[in-house]
Amino acid sequence: MMKVGVVGATGYTGIELVQYLLKHPKVQLNYVTSQQYVGQPLAKVYPSLNNRTNLICEMFSVDLAAQKTELIFLALPHGESMAVVPELLNRGVKVIDLGADFRLKNSEIYPKWYGNTHLYPELLKDARYGLTELFRKDIAGAKLVANPGCYATATALGLAPIMTLQNAFRSISVDAKSGVTGAGKKLTETTHFPDCNENFSAYRIAKHQHIPEIEQTLSQVHGKPIQINFVTHLLPVNRGILTTQYIELLQKKALVEWRALYEDFYKNEFFVRIIHDPVPNIMQVVRSNFCDIGVYLDERTNFLIVISVIDNLVKGAAGQAIQNMNLICGWPEATALV
Amino acid sequence: MMKVGVVGATGYTGIELVQYLLKHPKVQLNYVTSQQYVGQPLAKVYPSLNNRTNLICEMFSVDLAAQKTELIFLALPHGESMAVVPELLNRGVKVIDLGADFRLKNSEIYPKWYGNTHLYPELLKDARYGLTELFRKDIAGAKLVANPGCYATATALGLAPIMTLQNAFRSISVDAKSGVTGAGKKLTETTHFPDCNENFSAYRIAKHQHIPEIEQTLSQVHGKPIQINFVTHLLPVNRGILTTQYIELLQKKALVEWRALYEDFYKNEFFVRIIHDPVPNIMQVVRSNFCDIGVYLDERTNFLIVISVIDNLVKGAAGQAIQNMNLICGWPEATALV
Amino acid sequence: MMKVGVVGATGYTGIELVQYLLKHPKVQLNYVTSQQYVGQPLAKVYPSLNNRTNLICEMFSVDLAAQKTELIFLALPHGESMAVVPELLNRGVKVIDLGADFRLKNSEIYPKWYGNTHLYPELLKDARYGLTELFRKDIAGAKLVANPGCYATATALGLAPIMTLQNAFRSISVDAKSGVTGAGKKLTETTHFPDCNENFSAYRIAKHQHIPEIEQTLSQVHGKPIQINFVTHLLPVNRGILTTQYIELLQKKALVEWRALYEDFYKNEFFVRIIHDPVPNIMQVVRSNFCDIGVYLDERTNFLIVISVIDNLVKGAAGQAIQNMNLICGWPEATALV
Amino acid sequence: MMKVGVVGATGYTGIELVQYLLKHPKVQLNYVTSQQYVGQPLAKVYPSLNNRTNLICEMFSVDLAAQKTELIFLALPHGESMAVVPELLNRGVKVIDLGADFRLKNSEIYPKWYGNTHLYPELLKDARYGLTELFRKDIAGAKLVANPGCYATATALGLAPIMTLQNAFRSISVDAKSGVTGAGKKLTETTHFPDCNENFSAYRIAKHQHIPEIEQTLSQVHGKPIQINFVTHLLPVNRGILTTQYIELLQKKALVEWRALYEDFYKNEFFVRIIHDPVPNIMQVVRSNFCDIGVYLDERTNFLIVISVIDNLVKGAAGQAIQNMNLICGWPEATALV
Repeated sequence: MMKVGVVGATGYTGIELVQYLLKHPKVQLNYVTSQQYVGQPLAKVYPSLNNRTNLICEMFSVDLAAQKTELIFLALPHGESMAVVPELLNRGVKVIDLGADFRLKNSEIYPKWYGNTHLYPELLKDARYGLTELFRKDIAGAKLVANPGCYATATALGLAPIMTLQNAFRSISVDAKSGVTGAGKKLTETTHFPDCNENFSAYRIAKHQHIPEIEQTLSQVHGKPIQINFVTHLLPVNRGILTTQYIELLQKKALVEWRALYEDFYKNEFFVRIIHDPVPNIMQVVRSNFCDIGVYLDERTNFLIVISVIDNLVKGAAGQAIQNMNLICGWPEATALV
Repeated sequence: MMKVGVVGATGYTGIELVQYLLKHPKVQLNYVTSQQYVGQPLAKVYPSLNNRTNLICEMFSVDLAAQKTELIFLALPHGESMAVVPELLNRGVKVIDLGADFRLKNSEIYPKWYGNTHLYPELLKDARYGLTELFRKDIAGAKLVANPGCYATATALGLAPIMTLQNAFRSISVDAKSGVTGAGKKLTETTHFPDCNENFSAYRIAKHQHIPEIEQTLSQVHGKPIQINFVTHLLPVNRGILTTQYIELLQKKALVEWRALYEDFYKNEFFVRIIHDPVPNIMQVVRSNFCDIGVYLDERTNFLIVISVIDNLVKGAAGQAIQNMNLICGWPEATALV
Repeated sequence: MMKVGVVGATGYTGIELVQYLLKHPKVQLNYVTSQQYVGQPLAKVYPSLNNRTNLICEMFSVDLAAQKTELIFLALPHGESMAVVPELLNRGVKVIDLGADFRLKNSEIYPKWYGNTHLYPELLKDARYGLTELFRKDIAGAKLVANPGCYATATALGLAPIMTLQNAFRSISVDAKSGVTGAGKKLTETTHFPDCNENFSAYRIAKHQHIPEIEQTLSQVHGKPIQINFVTHLLPVNRGILTTQYIELLQKKALVEWRALYEDFYKNEFFVRIIHDPVPNIMQVVRSNFCDIGVYLDERTNFLIVISVIDNLVKGAAGQAIQNMNLICGWPEATALV
Repeated sequence: MMKVGVVGATGYTGIELVQYLLKHPKVQLNYVTSQQYVGQPLAKVYPSLNNRTNLICEMFSVDLAAQKTELIFLALPHGESMAVVPELLNRGVKVIDLGADFRLKNSEIYPKWYGNTHLYPELLKDARYGLTELFRKDIAGAKLVANPGCYATATALGLAPIMTLQNAFRSISVDAKSGVTGAGKKLTETTHFPDCNENFSAYRIAKHQHIPEIEQTLSQVHGKPIQINFVTHLLPVNRGILTTQYIELLQKKALVEWRALYEDFYKNEFFVRIIHDPVPNIMQVVRSNFCDIGVYLDERTNFLIVISVIDNLVKGAAGQAIQNMNLICGWPEATALV
């Protein structure tokens, strides 16, 4: 049994990780940390865990982490991972970081989107971006995985197949909608029930911090720089992301050919399912690690329209992190995920 | 007091009309019809109306309608209005039709989007399209108003200002989301609570029947044919539409100039409010006749991004119908609407 | 036009009051206060009010209140009204207090349920408890109205008819459920969307502060002390209260007789509707000032079961406050309420 | 691997069973039936099952069932199980029936609550009532298990400990609330999203068909006949039941003693958790087989108040059925359930 830990275990992503790890046959979860609940049983904070774990929330320290874990998941607010990752790596602990700190390769654009400068820009080149289906080979031997953002996962998986083509498309607009767990456990007016329930709104229009992460991935697959329009919205549901992608085409092809492109691209992938009919909805992927994609064509305008759906906390966070751990450790990728 | 009636009073649009008409100071509602509930008090079907009206659901007949009303609202399933409108007009009853039968000017494209041919194509030229803010002059003297679709209202109001410009934009993609009352009172699997709640889905991708209606309006304002990409989604809320509009620009202007275009265009309109901050959400317009619009610019891609919100049952249906009645009758447009 | 004001206008109760007062034909709302938003337009805090009011949130002061208003509504957190009411009354301003400070007649039990002692116990006898249907005569000439709690309104209206009988019942248990606006605008973990949505929970079991208020009302109607079991629950909806009342009977009567008791008791009341079939639900009273009541009998156990529903923000707060203002001022009770 | 089947696999209970059986290490699911979807892949009906099963919905026949399964789960509408159970048993297939047909021991009261007479009253004595924690010994050797109703499970587990006492209590009232999956997959007006969302209602007041089932269990534990008041309500959530139980006490004891009674009664049970603080809510048991119970005392009225929560589709249906299968087969009771 490999010893693992979760730093930031009481946030939505952290507790999702805990639940997957508790039923994973190859690991032993013996270190969970929290800032707010130190000393409390995890099952006191999340009563659903009663009779399932006796773990106590501990304070985070590199010493404890190095002593108690071989691989550690960081589920921390943006900007906090970068401070502790170098030392963890030095102590031989593998790291899967579910925050944004190590996702961008180019440290120069980091401050524009995140507001602060990066403490260890030299580490960025060592981090492997954990979009498993696209970068499996890179990830296999990783010591530090930057697990992708939830919007970034849904968007990039939906656009990757067409990125393999040259001169095939012009502008791309992505309309993305996320359930409220995506906004985290922190109390805000936007997520106060009476203001969020029966409401729907757009936010950070064309300014969401996942934009550079998505463009980095798409540019890498395409081989040339890609820019997208990207608007995020808050859905009054707990979980799930749906993106609607509008791709202006430069080639005339039948729908069946565009669909073949997608089906072929993902033909060996277990966790990406190409399903055109019925149109993928979030319910069919919620609480699973699947990303479902449907492909449509407006023949009048010659726009390709792609729908992709994931669970923001699973394929968009904890599930993909487990998938990456499985990959790193040489276990079947779906272990504990189905 | 003008005598009015509502045909199809027990559907969501019909009952919304009833509620506005009951508190309208200039009209007397004395004829409500229903297919399913003939002979039953309206307050039995909608218990919220107890102590507020004693109206009984009647069978529809042109004779009764002509005898009991001077102006009648039709809230019927698609395809049913066209059969009765000519006779109502012949009997001197003014008609505001909330269905789709008289919205398209071109009877030739009608079958493509609606599946059936039009019974009275010659009437289409007499019908006035009731998007009040854009076609007020036409509507004022109308005998037959084709009240716009809900998606069509939200979309066209959001795009109209930019349609006044030539060579200013290229492609347009509209991502539209509607609450479930938009799908009507008919039971369907999609709107069964456990399948709809905590879910979100796209439907009729690039095939929604409001597309030609929107393009007709935009083309009329622009003076040249306009085509749009249009995808509709089902939001798990009762009411409200939000559209996110992606407009590829051909001109470079500062955000403040684009906003000025919108503010100027609607400067005399009571029911259209240009509000950029905070970004308009559906809660701020629900149960009102307002359409709120916010304008944003992605400077990196030079796309204009416009958010518009309405209540699908008010500005998107019953409210705008009342607004049109007020206009036709020479009453202040906001009568009974605030 | 009578000049009125709302203290605490940006809470859920306050803004509900504002909306009713803006359309009230007999009053002019010219003073709204807020602690958090002083200096901001009310329409900035609640964008739905754009084009409907230019009121600016002011700081509360007795001087301003006395100068700008003849009657004032207090929508303040518990414990804050009592400090300002005496001075307002001294300055000749009539007060309708929507908080709990003046609801209990007996200042000795106040600390047990509210945790603090009352500053002006001598004022309690002057305050009129504003459950309009039960205490209309008292309220008519009031200078200070203690507007009832939301749970207290729904519960007491449901139980009042049977309280007129002696030796008719034994124990009473009331199971009460409220929408989330009842918990107020303050951010809490319980009302954070992902923890509240798709959840349901009981709280303050047998300890809710509305218990003594309910028992005071029931005892007054009954003429002897009454005690009840009372459990409150948080419903994942924005608005509405439903109470299910279990009354152990000491007399055998047919259901029709129990129903007649209720129908007779409320036969002259506009805002209380006795509707047994279909069983009253919250949707039929939401956004109205109605209280709907249904009466049922378990003949096997000889328990009477009563269902009562209200909108917690209307009949349970702002609506009943307006009803009381109308009563005090000699206007028709339903003015601005239908 | 034991061969198993699910009859009625496309209803909410059926599909929940399928999901548990697919990950159960001791069984092979190789027969799923449906009336509506014969010939279709289960993954077409429930897209979430893509890549997880290739099962095709078959027509039900006793021959096929006997050939393909050793144990079969029936998830059929009320009244349909009784017709097929005798033959299945004759062919040596063990049956776990999730419907109501075999729950009542007394065939005479059956018609009163279910409207029809029982076809095979003599079979009722052979059926074992599958409330695992209370009747484990009976179930162990069963050939036919009548799996309890969802409300019946939550209510009986909450009341069982106090039933072991004599002269300890008088009247009992149970206020029960269920999520909408409890109403099944059939389309109804009550469960149409716009009429169910943001609503809350009571139904079948004192007439719910689970009443005799609950009373049978309580009477059996108590040793004397028990009657309860019972009102059911429809919660606008997908899953979960919460019951609030009001028990009039005849003895004075401290809260700690009542709690000890409960803790002791369930001290060896894995799936019943006694948790008083925080008060159990439905979120903490949803998608699990746990029943959580909290015990409270109103010292003023001397009523014990008990809160119990379950997931209606898991402990209230499919989960408990799996638990019973595990018990019958001698496997650890929690197999595939955690």
